[in-house]
Amino acid sequence: MIPRAQAEARDASDPLASFRDEFAVAAGDSTVYFDGNSLGRLPYATLGRIEEVVAREWGTGLIRSWESWVDLPTRVGDLLGTTLLGARPGEVAIADSTTVNLFKLADAALDAHPHGRVIVTDDQNFPTDHYVLQGLAAERGLELRTFASDPVHGPDGDSLGAALRASHSTGGDVALVCLSHVGYKSGAIADMNTLTWLAHEVGAPVLWDLSHSVGSVPVDLTGSGADLAVGCTYKYVNAGPGAPAFAYVRAEVQPFVRQPIWGWFGQEDQFEMGSEYRPSAGIRQQVVGTPPVLGIVAVEEGVRILARAGMDALRAKSVELTGFAVALHDEWLAPLGFTLASPRDPARRGSHVSVAHPEARKLCQALIEQGVVLDFRTPDVARLGLAPLYTRFVDVWDGMDRLRALAAS
Amino acid sequence: MIPRAQAEARDASDPLASFRDEFAVAAGDSTVYFDGNSLGRLPYATLGRIEEVVAREWGTGLIRSWESWVDLPTRVGDLLGTTLLGARPGEVAIADSTTVNLFKLADAALDAHPHGRVIVTDDQNFPTDHYVLQGLAAERGLELRTFASDPVHGPDGDSLGAALRASHSTGGDVALVCLSHVGYKSGAIADMNTLTWLAHEVGAPVLWDLSHSVGSVPVDLTGSGADLAVGCTYKYVNAGPGAPAFAYVRAEVQPFVRQPIWGWFGQEDQFEMGSEYRPSAGIRQQVVGTPPVLGIVAVEEGVRILARAGMDALRAKSVELTGFAVALHDEWLAPLGFTLASPRDPARRGSHVSVAHPEARKLCQALIEQGVVLDFRTPDVARLGLAPLYTRFVDVWDGMDRLRALAAS
Repeated sequence: MIPRAQAEARDASDPLASFRDEFAVAAGDSTVYFDGNSLGRLPYATLGRIEEVVAREWGTGLIRSWESWVDLPTRVGDLLGTTLLGARPGEVAIADSTTVNLFKLADAALDAHPHGRVIVTDDQNFPTDHYVLQGLAAERGLELRTFASDPVHGPDGDSLGAALRASHSTGGDVALVCLSHVGYKSGAIADMNTLTWLAHEVGAPVLWDLSHSVGSVPVDLTGSGADLAVGCTYKYVNAGPGAPAFAYVRAEVQPFVRQPIWGWFGQEDQFEMGSEYRPSAGIRQQVVGTPPVLGIVAVEEGVRILARAGMDALRAKSVELTGFAVALHDEWLAPLGFTLASPRDPARRGSHVSVAHPEARKLCQALIEQGVVLDFRTPDVARLGLAPLYTRFVDVWDGMDRLRALAAS
Repeated sequence: MIPRAQAEARDASDPLASFRDEFAVAAGDSTVYFDGNSLGRLPYATLGRIEEVVAREWGTGLIRSWESWVDLPTRVGDLLGTTLLGARPGEVAIADSTTVNLFKLADAALDAHPHGRVIVTDDQNFPTDHYVLQGLAAERGLELRTFASDPVHGPDGDSLGAALRASHSTGGDVALVCLSHVGYKSGAIADMNTLTWLAHEVGAPVLWDLSHSVGSVPVDLTGSGADLAVGCTYKYVNAGPGAPAFAYVRAEVQPFVRQPIWGWFGQEDQFEMGSEYRPSAGIRQQVVGTPPVLGIVAVEEGVRILARAGMDALRAKSVELTGFAVALHDEWLAPLGFTLASPRDPARRGSHVSVAHPEARKLCQALIEQGVVLDFRTPDVARLGLAPLYTRFVDVWDGMDRLRALAAS
């Protein structure tokens, strides 16, 4: 029996506990929020910053404020990249949506590998990744090979290796491998170093989707050898609904990457308005149209909080939170017909825990009505996102206690 | 001699004068703002709405607010389209940037016209339009034919007709015509009906860039027969720095338009997360990734104000404002070596007036330092954007008076 007092004790000794006070939680609001992996909470600093940017920079500064805004995509990109992604300065830009960035980078990678005939991904990757790759494969007459990876543990060396070998044996050079670092459904962490290395062995670049890891799981893009990456900022980076995404292009491959949407913000000397497109040599080429200022400053505030907490401390708490959820699942939910749909090994588990149950859809609906906010994912998964900046151990206990009560009734 | 009293009298009888009070203008701020065609002013309603959306909808509602946010791109698209563009419901979505939307629609048009070999545009079109078309032409091995249009009066039936005939005579079917409705430099209004008809005569669709007309010049997409259009919302729609753009696809051509970035927000039943992309049948297909909520609500507020003023009244005031600027140019600036770089015929003139002078770059810099904010455009153009919602006749008089004094000294 795991008593609530245990959760209270863990909160009391949590070195990150005070960060919760930096997020807008209305007094008396008893909502248990397990959806920070879909839409992170609002930092008070972001509310203030947005008011400042709207009222003073836009309202009073007007067009003159572009002098400082114009570098936001790369300045905040550098901050996010060096703090959260293990990237070097000049490798990350904030731009567009995750989907559009996926398109840009995947298209550029295919252009850079004209002999490749196959795009490889796995069946646990996020739907929009599949759709973008389907579109590019159709446009170019390429094969999209979607290999089966374990629904709980995600893509690994065996499953990716087999897919790469199968492509080669049929004579189809692999043009691109696209994978999620943390699976959106299972929360499984893919071994970025090994999988990148396997792809490079057959001459294929790797495009990583970091949407479900950035801000909760340490990422080492430089060390992994990854070529390209994208990710979103409205989950663990807490930058708000529809906040802009990021694009990473490794410095060494930047000379070979030309993204397909030739926009004026990716042009050298954009305000000279020359008639011929000359792409910016650096990461700024990924900035296409006029950058969304409100969204980017919200990203900056979100990253600043994560930076103060530190990725090591965030990861340590995340592992404890998800471990606590797994323990409660085993004790309370497994006897009621649930199964764990996330890795049991903490080293393979991101910051959300999924539990499967045949009635998960109904249970999630009922739970949300009771103020426990979580995601249902087809066909039978309830997803508990545990954000180390503001999720408490008592939240995990309370939310899972209510899930248990519902499932038992 | 045009006395300042004349400007004062015209302000006193301006039926739209009170709308200026709805915009954030700091007490005692004597800035003369001629850049509403680059970044429109902040409406107070937008400041309040953004605070509300951030603090309450995001901060308290959290993920539950997506229930109302999910339809924002098409709901606000309908409002903007029916109010400002002469579009019908279901033809406009708010999404991405103008550049990305140009790419999506131009690419879709080229796919729909596989026999076409030529893309036609004119040399007065906006740089990002050129760049996007250059990228698509390079990718597909098509010819981009950039015809010379009059620098002051923009593309017309003669210049476009000649370009279309030249393409035909060299055996190159025209796949797409892309033009700006109002020229970014001259402010010239293109005859949308005639030019669309000419393109259709050779079987080519037309993609209109409405960035410099939307909210200041009436647009009749339905009546003109236009196929596709894009435009931005941070100019006369006053939706803020980097606010999202819009995409228009005529209902009759929607069945033939499949944009290339297959994103989960353009998918039918997106939350079922099916493995195969099935594009939404309607305009929602243009919504690619997660929509930028703060940007879209700012568009909604901006359109609401324009709707209350009414496009007829806005156009009437815009014509008076630009006419006043032309009169002041003739009396004050022409003797100092300026020439008018915008059409003299009010029916051909949008809501900004450009004046050319060999020292325009220096003059603009000095003028901005004196609090008269305007745009310089290479090589020799000073651009005065006159926004009928908040620009006063005394602003025109004061700003041009200072320009005259600077140029004379």
